[in-house]
Amino acid sequence: MRKVEHIGIAVYSLEKAVPLYSRLLNTPCYKQEAVDSEQVQTAFFQQGDTKIELLEATGEASTIRRFLDKKGEGIHHIAFDVEDIYAEMERLRSEGFTLLNETPKPGADNKLICFVHPKDSHGVLIELCQEIR
Amino acid sequence: MRKVEHIGIAVYSLEKAVPLYSRLLNTPCYKQEAVDSEQVQTAFFQQGDTKIELLEATGEASTIRRFLDKKGEGIHHIAFDVEDIYAEMERLRSEGFTLLNETPKPGADNKLICFVHPKDSHGVLIELCQEIR
Repeated sequence: MRKVEHIGIAVYSLEKAVPLYSRLLNTPCYKQEAVDSEQVQTAFFQQGDTKIELLEATGEASTIRRFLDKKGEGIHHIAFDVEDIYAEMERLRSEGFTLLNETPKPGADNKLICFVHPKDSHGVLIELCQEIR
Repeated sequence: MRKVEHIGIAVYSLEKAVPLYSRLLNTPCYKQEAVDSEQVQTAFFQQGDTKIELLEATGEASTIRRFLDKKGEGIHHIAFDVEDIYAEMERLRSEGFTLLNETPKPGADNKLICFVHPKDSHGVLIELCQEIR
């Protein structure tokens, strides 16, 4: 793990949340991007070398929809930048952590991603992400 | 807001969580510090130019105790580094955000801090923090 790449926040409506976060963080949203495989629409704000990623569900099967139904709006995950996602997944498996996907999958922002089960990290959903080179 | 200074995570027991996060993040805890005024014990891990701060309640009046009782373990807040906390509090007030303390208060790690009400930020508890110079 090299740095916090982004913090994911689940919201009901990007239309409402994007202008509010722009005022809160005092910086514009620099990108919106759909991740169809995850049924989410994302919106990004830069903060130093970390990003804030707002997440709106775009379909019933979206994990963000389930999160919102269960817990309401709030922080959904922390994503850590890794140099080699395959090596990091192997390291975490060998340390006894449970990975939520067997192989990396494509995420927003040109990344390969993998999630670590929150039961193994005191209730925090951790994402590994590696830039696709 | 200049960068994500740290992400605060509420845990039941630092004794259990510190070694686990050390394995998860592949880096040692570099500091533990009590904040008696908040009735918390904190433990820090560096990740790039951001920190992960684990928080254990040390008294019944701790807001971390109330968070744990209500929601269980998990991400408690995101803290943003600011150059001038008084100016940033004034800016946020003028934008209509509700601040949870009228004046900055001392936090862990030689900081002045102030919280923004999560009702104003889509369920996310935001902390402003400024290094005490």
